[in-house]
Amino acid sequence: MLSVQEATRLLLGALPEPETEEVDLWSAAGCVLAVDVVADSDLPGFRRAAMDGYAVRADDVAAAEGRRPVLLRVIGEAAAGRPSEAVVVPGTAVRISTGAPLPAGADAVVRFEETRASDGRVAVLCPVRPGENVGEADEDVRAGERVLAAGTLLRPPEIGLLAALGWARVPVLRRPVVHLVSTGDELVDVAATPAYGQVRNSTAYALGAAVRQCGGQPVLRQRVPDRLEAIASAVAASLAEEPEVVITTGGASVGEHDLVRLAFDRLGAEHLFWRVAMKPGMNVVAAKRGRTLLVGLSGNPAAALCSFEVIVRPALTALAGAERPLARARVVLDEEVAQIPVRSRFLRVQVYAAGGVLRARPAGSQLPSVLSSLARANAFAVIPPGLRTLPAGTVVEALIFAGSEAGLLSGGGGVS
Amino acid sequence: MLSVQEATRLLLGALPEPETEEVDLWSAAGCVLAVDVVADSDLPGFRRAAMDGYAVRADDVAAAEGRRPVLLRVIGEAAAGRPSEAVVVPGTAVRISTGAPLPAGADAVVRFEETRASDGRVAVLCPVRPGENVGEADEDVRAGERVLAAGTLLRPPEIGLLAALGWARVPVLRRPVVHLVSTGDELVDVAATPAYGQVRNSTAYALGAAVRQCGGQPVLRQRVPDRLEAIASAVAASLAEEPEVVITTGGASVGEHDLVRLAFDRLGAEHLFWRVAMKPGMNVVAAKRGRTLLVGLSGNPAAALCSFEVIVRPALTALAGAERPLARARVVLDEEVAQIPVRSRFLRVQVYAAGGVLRARPAGSQLPSVLSSLARANAFAVIPPGLRTLPAGTVVEALIFAGSEAGLLSGGGGVS
Repeated sequence: MLSVQEATRLLLGALPEPETEEVDLWSAAGCVLAVDVVADSDLPGFRRAAMDGYAVRADDVAAAEGRRPVLLRVIGEAAAGRPSEAVVVPGTAVRISTGAPLPAGADAVVRFEETRASDGRVAVLCPVRPGENVGEADEDVRAGERVLAAGTLLRPPEIGLLAALGWARVPVLRRPVVHLVSTGDELVDVAATPAYGQVRNSTAYALGAAVRQCGGQPVLRQRVPDRLEAIASAVAASLAEEPEVVITTGGASVGEHDLVRLAFDRLGAEHLFWRVAMKPGMNVVAAKRGRTLLVGLSGNPAAALCSFEVIVRPALTALAGAERPLARARVVLDEEVAQIPVRSRFLRVQVYAAGGVLRARPAGSQLPSVLSSLARANAFAVIPPGLRTLPAGTVVEALIFAGSEAGLLSGGGGVS
Repeated sequence: MLSVQEATRLLLGALPEPETEEVDLWSAAGCVLAVDVVADSDLPGFRRAAMDGYAVRADDVAAAEGRRPVLLRVIGEAAAGRPSEAVVVPGTAVRISTGAPLPAGADAVVRFEETRASDGRVAVLCPVRPGENVGEADEDVRAGERVLAAGTLLRPPEIGLLAALGWARVPVLRRPVVHLVSTGDELVDVAATPAYGQVRNSTAYALGAAVRQCGGQPVLRQRVPDRLEAIASAVAASLAEEPEVVITTGGASVGEHDLVRLAFDRLGAEHLFWRVAMKPGMNVVAAKRGRTLLVGLSGNPAAALCSFEVIVRPALTALAGAERPLARARVVLDEEVAQIPVRSRFLRVQVYAAGGVLRARPAGSQLPSVLSSLARANAFAVIPPGLRTLPAGTVVEALIFAGSEAGLLSGGGGVS
């Protein structure tokens, strides 16, 4: 059976080229830059005071000291946004506040604390070096410099830099569109009351949230009954809108109702893989048609989320601009765990830090249909295939759910 | 001077009660639940087949084995969403697929692989225990159980659970509204071309992105000139809309232009603190008026972001539902770093994993006005106050920027 690594690699190899779009900088946080950003000017663009004080010629005050201050005539005032037009000639100074352009003639700023002002003059109590308390015109960015590279995730500092450079709108990778097609005669809408034998469509909602977490835009499509025709035509309708990904849920098992794979075939999609050596979530089928990735996941919510996190997340985050698989950490098992042959088990666990070491305790039921234990988990412990029972204390790898990394990093990191 | 810890504590102690709102479950990922969720029914709500096969009475097949199969008459078929009305009496079976309700009379499912079907009958090749391959009506959730507690962050599994329980709309904490009031005569809009001595308003954009990262809703307010009246009336206009937080930038230094503190006073706000023992970002002023927190930050973008991340983030994330300060990790300094008296230095660094240990190298200029080095950083290394130069190899604490934790956790965690 195909390994998880191989399945992940096949999906990553089949990614469409991402689309780009222009967004308002104010809403661009979390987006990924689509182009290199080259500065068209220096930043801040002019020499300015880095402190409140007096703009002077350093030569003038070279001999200043507390007992023998140098007296300068104050010929103007400069504030941020309000430059002084005065020219600082020998023997003069301009009162200046932080951020104000350094007046012509001046080459340094003496801080207020090192002066005494009186009646149109200022007494400077200590010397300054040329350039002291002055910010250079290119102290932040030099004109022509590549400030940010295409592919950069826009965090607060990058947003600030783009603002400083005047990029009011910014070309970013479009968040990949992911259609969610739910198959299953048993499904009813979330707002409906299920009749006997029916269940609400929880899997699509859980996957929608997971798609958002990966930087995608989920689109909830109509539910589809368990018939080949219906599934094929629903997927065809999605394909017509050319989303980056179509994810189906249900109908991917090996029984009579293994219809999704047939539907993909009927639509002429290029087969990528079917079934992956993992538990839960073995029944994954993947194909490609045009620029759209087609992925069929289990109808069982925990199984679908497990396959999504392990196999789909790397591809979807890569499409969104930067491959971000779940973080990996080594953890100590609190309880013994049985291996299974051929397939890796992805055990829902609570990972916690204890004495600088990460430990994992099972989070409850491991059934593919059970969500409540997944809601109590913050990681999958990966149990490699085999025939043994791994004793408590065994060190295994865990995949840490998005959002739980910070706490565990603060808790002391991993097990080396 | 007030310590960072004390300033953080004071802000956290002054938080307003969060507002709640109801949102569509489809868009609720990342929100924080405002109420306890108690199940009004079992989940899935009925006994069902966990495998494709035949629903049988376990007693009937107790003696089944490969050489002496038990023959049962097939009296119906059940699929997910299509229950069978047949009653399984001794000697009979119902063909069943995964997720279908277990028919009356049956107490177990024999998997297809362990049967041979022929002409209205099925030969069962091995015994099953009562309950085998059957999912119980309450296997996921029991009616009356508190499934999720108020304050829970809604991740994909929680969204799935809420969907399964029929919560099409869900009460969540409203994302805190944060007004950003920029003061400074030197500021121009991002889309404008600065004249000599002017700069674009990058700080507000960077802070807007940081507010979003913390789960807040940033609102960019009009820029305000450096005059007490103008600042007070801009803050008053914000207060009239009762946001959770108003953040001003600029005008918080100790020069003549220290106007924000005076504006807060004039509005009758309760003073919380002024100036914090940190560099950059010392000039923070905090107050409270009605339910609104007022925070004045530096106009320098890197200084403002540093104060925000260290002091405001814990409060804002707590307001959003779960206090999330930056993750802390111990790192080894690659280069020597000079301490400064009284204040902690927050050094922009690149933290990277090498041999299972986290190391930190300076990310460039440490000037409060420089953003480009912050864009190259993924952490602040915290240099405690003092008079020494810490040699390369010193272990210090680092605050890891949001989004960089996963890579560092995977890289091998911290330094114990």
